[in-house]
Amino acid sequence: MQIKDLGEFRVIDLLQAITAQKSTVPIDGDMPYRLMVDNGDDAAAWKTNGGTELFTTDTMVEGVHFDLATSTWTDIGWKSLASNISDIAAMGGKPKYALITLGLPPETEVSHLEDLYQGYSKISNLYGVRIVGGDMVRANSIFITVGLVGIHSGQPMVRTKAKPGDLICTTGCVGSSGAGLKLLQESNNVSQNIRDFLLDQHKRPYPAVETGVFLSEHGVQVAMDISDGLADDISKLTRASQVAARIYTDQISVHPFVKQAFPDYWLELALHGGEDYQLLFSASPQLMANIQSELPSSSSIIGEIVDGEPGQVTLVGPNGEFLSTSTSGWDHYR
Amino acid sequence: MQIKDLGEFRVIDLLQAITAQKSTVPIDGDMPYRLMVDNGDDAAAWKTNGGTELFTTDTMVEGVHFDLATSTWTDIGWKSLASNISDIAAMGGKPKYALITLGLPPETEVSHLEDLYQGYSKISNLYGVRIVGGDMVRANSIFITVGLVGIHSGQPMVRTKAKPGDLICTTGCVGSSGAGLKLLQESNNVSQNIRDFLLDQHKRPYPAVETGVFLSEHGVQVAMDISDGLADDISKLTRASQVAARIYTDQISVHPFVKQAFPDYWLELALHGGEDYQLLFSASPQLMANIQSELPSSSSIIGEIVDGEPGQVTLVGPNGEFLSTSTSGWDHYR
Repeated sequence: MQIKDLGEFRVIDLLQAITAQKSTVPIDGDMPYRLMVDNGDDAAAWKTNGGTELFTTDTMVEGVHFDLATSTWTDIGWKSLASNISDIAAMGGKPKYALITLGLPPETEVSHLEDLYQGYSKISNLYGVRIVGGDMVRANSIFITVGLVGIHSGQPMVRTKAKPGDLICTTGCVGSSGAGLKLLQESNNVSQNIRDFLLDQHKRPYPAVETGVFLSEHGVQVAMDISDGLADDISKLTRASQVAARIYTDQISVHPFVKQAFPDYWLELALHGGEDYQLLFSASPQLMANIQSELPSSSSIIGEIVDGEPGQVTLVGPNGEFLSTSTSGWDHYR
Repeated sequence: MQIKDLGEFRVIDLLQAITAQKSTVPIDGDMPYRLMVDNGDDAAAWKTNGGTELFTTDTMVEGVHFDLATSTWTDIGWKSLASNISDIAAMGGKPKYALITLGLPPETEVSHLEDLYQGYSKISNLYGVRIVGGDMVRANSIFITVGLVGIHSGQPMVRTKAKPGDLICTTGCVGSSGAGLKLLQESNNVSQNIRDFLLDQHKRPYPAVETGVFLSEHGVQVAMDISDGLADDISKLTRASQVAARIYTDQISVHPFVKQAFPDYWLELALHGGEDYQLLFSASPQLMANIQSELPSSSSIIGEIVDGEPGQVTLVGPNGEFLSTSTSGWDHYR
């Protein structure tokens, strides 16, 4: 059996099960370092005397996650750190220290690496991240792994606590990054300013750190970032919480430029585009009412948590018609 | 200019300089998270209210760092975590939480990943490490990046504080791993028990965590792990401290099996073999006298820190003859 046969998520489940079954290391054996969030969330978390620490990692591979024909090295630097910052944002934390690992062929131009680090400098200064080291290794094709530690003053938001009756909210528009990617892949006679906007959304995402901190400070307990596509990520969140979800497609925030560029395809992009790095969270109707006025203007309540098959997401169209969606996330291997 | 022209270490210097020059993030701006050890040491370190945190990462690439024809997946799991644990040991810390990133082709056998995780389970249980997550991505060739967080109760040992007059000590034999690798690469009519021993030294290194903690608790301030070869690593340590070193080759601890298997080549293996994951440290003669009786039996004082060109390592043979060595470390790109 190969990875592509079993599928990414069942392989990950299997490896997590081995890790959990075989580990003899107590999760709270060595106070004050007590593990709070284990495998399967956006970041791991543990409590120390000084607060809560968050730890995440994310990798980009040339030809899979980026294409040097359409992205600059500076873009790649920005985005490879952004995806990690977003994992910290999803827990309500602040990103702090990063290690950068580069797998590079010997023929890599040094000037390209300088460009890459321009991207790291820009986004790390903007988000208060300090790059404290890393590793550089020879490889046949390019890959970049970022490890990032963050901090949180209390209890991080997780995927596992959604309850039936909770409302589901997104903190901004979805589909814009996917629209930008689609413009890179095929011809489209959209205007230059729309094109520029959407390409920028794809290449330079801004993780929602401030919003994540706001949510966590105001009592939201359930969140994740939208990296693999809204529908897939809702499915992951509900699977982790052993609940289902109902989503009203006409409530999903989609930027007007996405609808203009893709009048027949914008909903598909909104549901499955990925890499928007907005946050997805759930909260009780009362809590949602308390915080809604202070959320970003493009945030939207898009549905609700319901009882049902874990991970099942039911889409309800603008006329009340039911549409079903897959319960599987975006699989790198299929 | 390409990486292979400039060389790995000058590229790393360049990227560290960009990081340092461009960063506007204050290293002590957000107490209680104060950066103590920045780029260029075995691990980054920062102080929290709960103690000191250490953070390191290390990557292995198929065909560069391991060969599936001669290593099992279980071995690769063990070793890819061992190299990170050794970075924490080098600072005098205890390893704590690990994230595993796998770059894998879709055709990878799932049973191989189970074997890989057997290796992770074995070494992580032995060293009290908890695997708390990671990432799996599609790639054309296999790579493994481990990120590891460790803890320390005080001031981590670093590479930058060696002083002229310090004695230089290694905590165990060197050259055994390199001898094992050489047995894999060429024929040798050595006995089976010697062969088994040396292959095991190569495939299953045991990082010196206990010894590192002992050294740090007893006041040693300068240490690193021996991963790229004794001579290269001494050169790195002395370059970081802006000093030079004199090494007496007949004081270097080499296992008798290495000498038996390679009677004409053991010194070369001891100096340049790498991956022994013993510790290299320096301390004043008085401190060394205080702790020496409690060090592992194969530890040895092999030389001294002297004034001189930073990174220059002078080798002194058994008859007092001078031999010079390169001041450059093992370059993955040359």
